[in-house]
Amino acid sequence: MKVDFDKLHRAFNPQVVAVVGDSKSNNFNWLKAQKSFKGKLYSVHVNPNSFEDIKALGIENYPSLVDIPDPVDLAIVAVPRNATPGVLEDCIRKDVAGAHFFSAGFSETNAEEGLALERRLVKKAEKAGFHLIGPNCMGLFNPKVGIRQSEEQYTGVSGPLGFISQSGSIAIGFSLDAHTQGLDINKSVSFGNGIVVDSPDFLEYFGQDPEIKAIGLYLEGVKDGRRFISVLKEVAAQKPVVIWKGGRTEEGGRATASHTGSLSSSRIVWDAAINQCGAIQVISLEELIDTLKALLFLPPIQGNRVAIAGGPGGHSVTATDIFAETGLNLPLLTQESYDELETFFGPVGGSYRNPIDSAGPVRRDMKRVMAIVARDPHIDNLVYFVSTKPGWHFTPEQMKGAKDLLDSVKKKSSKPLMVVSMLYNPDAEKEIKDIRSNLQGMGIPVFLSFERCALALRNAFQYYNQVRRRTG
Amino acid sequence: MKVDFDKLHRAFNPQVVAVVGDSKSNNFNWLKAQKSFKGKLYSVHVNPNSFEDIKALGIENYPSLVDIPDPVDLAIVAVPRNATPGVLEDCIRKDVAGAHFFSAGFSETNAEEGLALERRLVKKAEKAGFHLIGPNCMGLFNPKVGIRQSEEQYTGVSGPLGFISQSGSIAIGFSLDAHTQGLDINKSVSFGNGIVVDSPDFLEYFGQDPEIKAIGLYLEGVKDGRRFISVLKEVAAQKPVVIWKGGRTEEGGRATASHTGSLSSSRIVWDAAINQCGAIQVISLEELIDTLKALLFLPPIQGNRVAIAGGPGGHSVTATDIFAETGLNLPLLTQESYDELETFFGPVGGSYRNPIDSAGPVRRDMKRVMAIVARDPHIDNLVYFVSTKPGWHFTPEQMKGAKDLLDSVKKKSSKPLMVVSMLYNPDAEKEIKDIRSNLQGMGIPVFLSFERCALALRNAFQYYNQVRRRTG
Repeated sequence: MKVDFDKLHRAFNPQVVAVVGDSKSNNFNWLKAQKSFKGKLYSVHVNPNSFEDIKALGIENYPSLVDIPDPVDLAIVAVPRNATPGVLEDCIRKDVAGAHFFSAGFSETNAEEGLALERRLVKKAEKAGFHLIGPNCMGLFNPKVGIRQSEEQYTGVSGPLGFISQSGSIAIGFSLDAHTQGLDINKSVSFGNGIVVDSPDFLEYFGQDPEIKAIGLYLEGVKDGRRFISVLKEVAAQKPVVIWKGGRTEEGGRATASHTGSLSSSRIVWDAAINQCGAIQVISLEELIDTLKALLFLPPIQGNRVAIAGGPGGHSVTATDIFAETGLNLPLLTQESYDELETFFGPVGGSYRNPIDSAGPVRRDMKRVMAIVARDPHIDNLVYFVSTKPGWHFTPEQMKGAKDLLDSVKKKSSKPLMVVSMLYNPDAEKEIKDIRSNLQGMGIPVFLSFERCALALRNAFQYYNQVRRRTG
Repeated sequence: MKVDFDKLHRAFNPQVVAVVGDSKSNNFNWLKAQKSFKGKLYSVHVNPNSFEDIKALGIENYPSLVDIPDPVDLAIVAVPRNATPGVLEDCIRKDVAGAHFFSAGFSETNAEEGLALERRLVKKAEKAGFHLIGPNCMGLFNPKVGIRQSEEQYTGVSGPLGFISQSGSIAIGFSLDAHTQGLDINKSVSFGNGIVVDSPDFLEYFGQDPEIKAIGLYLEGVKDGRRFISVLKEVAAQKPVVIWKGGRTEEGGRATASHTGSLSSSRIVWDAAINQCGAIQVISLEELIDTLKALLFLPPIQGNRVAIAGGPGGHSVTATDIFAETGLNLPLLTQESYDELETFFGPVGGSYRNPIDSAGPVRRDMKRVMAIVARDPHIDNLVYFVSTKPGWHFTPEQMKGAKDLLDSVKKKSSKPLMVVSMLYNPDAEKEIKDIRSNLQGMGIPVFLSFERCALALRNAFQYYNQVRRRTG
């Protein structure tokens, strides 16, 4: 079906939302999740027993969608599967811009009844040109207007990320975890079986949305491979697209079949296609978040040569192994830099070949040490380890000292600068989070381990290599 | 030098400790770190300006080690490198059981002055049969008696772990991070340049210590490869030994040289030797902690067949990929199990092939579902995902519900049972930590991600395979 972006735009930015068939047994989760919605929220329920409960939530109920006095932009449909064809007809009659069907029990069951029902929905929706999202999914999340997939999600803020997910739990999990790390959603969709509006449609729509600066996808399968690839190529040429594919292994492929009815494709073909399109592939949620972080916060990565500074000796050794094994390069600095560094480092204490330790007496000179490293022509990227203590938990004061230092580096150098801050301090979680968002506000992404930083940097470097290849 | 275990035992379990040459510029960190020491603590300092400061800490100072009225079990030496030969002579004269030399500036500088000084220390110590630990290291940690490498470390509790580290920051970092995850140190040593008492000595000593049930090592290099291998083989036959080698890459090897003066060895030779000894090799701190956790908390792993349960659909797919890619097997259950499971799962909602989703209506029957999976003969190991919400943050109540469920599984089945609990909830960190330690007290290790669980289980399986091969 040819998708109408104006209709999708209305569904993602609704003024009126109707939740159809939310139930007490579902704890009215769909109505509660939309409590934060800034527009007008209606309930549609046929069972009089539920009327009082819905009224108690402060929400107006109508026995049918068509009775709602306003035009409806988004319907959230949670009725049992047998009632879905009737609700779809009401949606069409009411000219709802888009409807998210939470209801499940269709092709993912691989049983005739569900398959037949799904075929009926497809036929009805396509005939009417109706924008059905799902079924078997968690629908839309737009924190700015307050429509949510779960009550746990945040509202009132908005970020640069578009996220498209075949899985509802991963859509919600991604939004929460990325938020904790300072990356916020602009628009997100969990599309489940994707029988009418499918992943290429959302990708194309997010591609032309100026508020979305980078797109993440979690996919289990693609129905029309040719179309997906052609859209991906077009969108990836405009903004970074990072893809996590579930069901890469034979066993995982078996799991996707019963989850969203997806058939697994050949892994080699898939990998080659994604790469050719200029998109970046990742294999975990962490890598997905970190790669988007690197792409959003860092300037274009010009080379793979890295200097690491700020760690004690043991960390320097293990960080070097990690970066080298990820395919990044830790070269020696120029002799000119070493001649200058020698004036700070005595014969005793930290090493300054690369990595540059932040040990004992050098600590108070780290601003000048970092300035030397930052202007060294052998180095493309700077990684700074935030911890001046031998242990791995840092205090808020140490974080503040590091912030001053990094601020001075940032002012003197335009090279990509990133921070590794291991683990967390349970006693100072809030302060550390504030300083982290502060650093990220300065354009300095903070990664939770050397492994995660190295992978993200390698992926971002790969992305900019593809951009350079394309633009010649 | 032939090491005397009685002397090492006195150094690790001292009744009298002397800190030599701690200074104001070092913030008296060594004296402060021993505040928790249960025995008698003395300071040795020659500078009268420091006497008042040391007195203010409530610690008796003597101008020389030999003036201390009691026999000294452990000396912690923090004097400038040029003063180390004199202090070593005092240690020998005083018949101190063992001395940890924090002082640095020896062979790790790769400069003649440091190399010559180090040779003098070796000669003096070996001639006297003196147990010198270090130099260029953070020394001993025994939380039970309260001697520490850093004020950040815990005291008063004691665990089953021995840890031997060439790096001080990794020794401290490991102890803190493992503690957060419910794994406590029995004895730990950071031995730096290891010029007299070296890694094989500590390994042999920890091997015969009945309080130590598993040993972790962080190594950058080994001086006497033949001896190390022979000791490792002997110790690994008695208890699990897990090794993390820093400087695996060419770049990392360069970093070890200036950190602890270690020369890197051929990686292939090293890997083969470790494997032949029946030790387990890991490549990150996380993998080290998780592997020790699996070895300490789980019964012997009998096979590589895993059932995963408790997750929503998207997690099930991605977890399957992760386990399969780590080399573990997620087989189908027996038809008998499927026939039984069918009575709980309707046509709509979660899948139960393997993984077994914990979706909607099944949730309240999960105890019976898990009982079926636990007795399935196709399955060797059970992995349970703790989160009943679509998002990835769990509440304390959800954790309690999971605990009941797991308790019932544990009572019915002797198969290895482990839990994956992603991320953390900053608002309920303490409750979750309590329940985690509670689960681990029941012999159910809790891992922070599917990746970490899969790696730990694979490593533990490899360990028990080696044990079975050895014992025929």
